Amino acid sequence: MDCERIGRVETPYASREDAPRQGFLGDATGTVHVAEQYRAALTGLDTGHTIDVVWWADDADRSVLRVRGGNRGVFTTRSPARPNPVCVTTCDVLAVDSEAGTLDVAGVDMVDGSPVVDLKYALVGDDEHTPSDR
Amino acid sequence: MDCERIGRVETPYASREDAPRQGFLGDATGTVHVAEQYRAALTGLDTGHTIDVVWWADDADRSVLRVRGGNRGVFTTRSPARPNPVCVTTCDVLAVDSEAGTLDVAGVDMVDGSPVVDLKYALVGDDEHTPSDR
Repeated sequence: MDCERIGRVETPYASREDAPRQGFLGDATGTVHVAEQYRAALTGLDTGHTIDVVWWADDADRSVLRVRGGNRGVFTTRSPARPNPVCVTTCDVLAVDSEAGTLDVAGVDMVDGSPVVDLKYALVGDDEHTPSDR
Repeated sequence: MDCERIGRVETPYASREDAPRQGFLGDATGTVHVAEQYRAALTGLDTGHTIDVVWWADDADRSVLRVRGGNRGVFTTRSPARPNPVCVTTCDVLAVDSEAGTLDVAGVDMVDGSPVVDLKYALVGDDEHTPSDR
């Protein structure tokens, strides 16, 4: 199953060691850059929305199955180290420039330059109960 | 970026038309079957946990960028129709058989037989504030 890169994310984190373990642990902001051919898919996205940024951890060790001395399987973590390093970070949208294909977002935990494979509305709080708008 | 199939999910839904738009809209249960070589990654997963099942919508139209008459970009939906049909469904774990590699889960919305590419602990409710255990 082949994932296309739909863009990349610009963050303050040069390496995995610099990044928080989850986006909500930091208040860092970043910018998602969406490639030109996918920008039509941003139609309707606006400031104040909450999205799941689905990204690919380029640097992840895909051979790891257990962590913490073998006591925890990677399927019980959200670490990027896992057979398919598809990561999901829920971010708040601060600003959108649809023409330029840029989204400023808060709550990033990705390493700078990580490939983005998808964006989707997040299911958060009361929104879980208003799927008609999804 | 190539995603390996780590397993598949068995659900009551023979087609997309049969499935709810989101897992939490139905109370249907299903079974995730994890391939033998990935079962070590289930270590520690137990009944009562909540997980994100990351799956691949085989039947999705990957050329769709806008829906609803062009008014909504697919990045503002959770529809499987999108450039990379990587879907995320949050499910409650009802039972685990680590040796057989099966997880019975509630809240499924996948078409029967869909490939699974990842499982990860979900960030839900109070758990959002207990990342030390993630």
